[in-house]
Amino acid sequence: MKIALCLEYDGRAFHGWQTQPSGNTVQDALEKALSEIAGEPIAVVCAGRTDAGVHASCQVVHFECLAERPLSAWVRGTNTLLPDAVAVRWAQPVADDFHARFSARGRRYRYLLLNRPQRPGLTHGRVGWFHQPLDLAAMQAAAARLLGEHDFSAFRAAECQAKSPVKELREAWVWQAGDHVVFDFEASAFLHHMVRNLVGTLVYIGKGKHSPAWIDELLECRDRKRAAPTFSPDGLYLSGISYEAHWGLPELPAPVLTGI
Amino acid sequence: MKIALCLEYDGRAFHGWQTQPSGNTVQDALEKALSEIAGEPIAVVCAGRTDAGVHASCQVVHFECLAERPLSAWVRGTNTLLPDAVAVRWAQPVADDFHARFSARGRRYRYLLLNRPQRPGLTHGRVGWFHQPLDLAAMQAAAARLLGEHDFSAFRAAECQAKSPVKELREAWVWQAGDHVVFDFEASAFLHHMVRNLVGTLVYIGKGKHSPAWIDELLECRDRKRAAPTFSPDGLYLSGISYEAHWGLPELPAPVLTGI
Repeated sequence: MKIALCLEYDGRAFHGWQTQPSGNTVQDALEKALSEIAGEPIAVVCAGRTDAGVHASCQVVHFECLAERPLSAWVRGTNTLLPDAVAVRWAQPVADDFHARFSARGRRYRYLLLNRPQRPGLTHGRVGWFHQPLDLAAMQAAAARLLGEHDFSAFRAAECQAKSPVKELREAWVWQAGDHVVFDFEASAFLHHMVRNLVGTLVYIGKGKHSPAWIDELLECRDRKRAAPTFSPDGLYLSGISYEAHWGLPELPAPVLTGI
Repeated sequence: MKIALCLEYDGRAFHGWQTQPSGNTVQDALEKALSEIAGEPIAVVCAGRTDAGVHASCQVVHFECLAERPLSAWVRGTNTLLPDAVAVRWAQPVADDFHARFSARGRRYRYLLLNRPQRPGLTHGRVGWFHQPLDLAAMQAAAARLLGEHDFSAFRAAECQAKSPVKELREAWVWQAGDHVVFDFEASAFLHHMVRNLVGTLVYIGKGKHSPAWIDELLECRDRKRAAPTFSPDGLYLSGISYEAHWGLPELPAPVLTGI
């Protein structure tokens, strides 16, 4: 049978999502725990691979297994075997043709940026940081220019393996919460480092180095070297994967702001 | 001269506030960094000692030194020398009779409780956790009964060194933010483990083990053994220290919810 799981994790505890010989990745930890529950070797496929240091409040995976277990075993049982920094949020049997990655219609990312003169202490590793004042309205105007289907080559890491640099950005919203700036993005899919490159470029616009129209230029030129440097992974959260309703996956409440 | 500082820290990185032979405490880290900036040994006094695993978004300390340094040295300079999990938020020269602890008129604590069936993963160590549904209205009614001046002996750790168990609780507010319950307390001062013992007792009331009137009984009997067990330090944040305005200390914006 095929099972889908939703996971959350603190990216600082792992060397990224994807399995490595060192074994200290989210995938390695999850496959080890699931294999123990199933009593057979389990391999998982995720909706969106995250880099080292990137967090997730909602990552979706699927796996196939022969063993039949109650859903509580896949959730509570797996959670007793996983490291503290990762937890299963739900598990659900899915149709055989469901695929965590290929069935996904969209991915959401949130970036939390601490915007104050002093570096983070309490939230070190969980937020990006920029010390100068940022023009929120300029960043919002710039973000609006990113919406729609574009060739995002200017925001694509050299090592990106996507077949096409053309993606549809459906949401790009920048807002303020106290001394934090929050960036919410939703797209059909993202190129490697795309969110961190977008945040870096929006911060350049926010600090007044370029106007919002710079976005049009960057989309046009498709040259990674002309956009801003990649921003830190610290503030990046994979915050949701969307699937068509007919797959019957549980809906999680939208992430709320729950820090201090 | 005398300087006051405001600090924030992630309590998981340290063995509590107070200096220890091991050296891995917030006080040890801060005194080492300040001594390097000052070029002389610096000893600090804090407003509220925090236990191992307890966080702070606003801890206030004072110290005396002969060296004269610009305020930016006490903030930015110290931050370059401190471990990542602690940062200075502001520094301010203060009158000679200011004392971080004895001049404080009140302390604020916030407790973040994740209330869902699955244990935390992303926010492991930064929130407490309770898996069963909680009755918010019952916890709010119970919290209201705690307000005012009481003998809080039923919520006092055996090792508490306070001269008197009588404290004035000025705020005790319980509210919900998504799947988190937030507890905000303000008091003239707190006994050892008092907030964690109050949270444990409010959770007992929230799950229906006792009615809100149990609070009156516990305040009356002054017997620690009859109240609920001490709740985990993970979700506890020292979130503010109040001083009279004439000391001229900077006001920080109230902590906002900035997690995910």
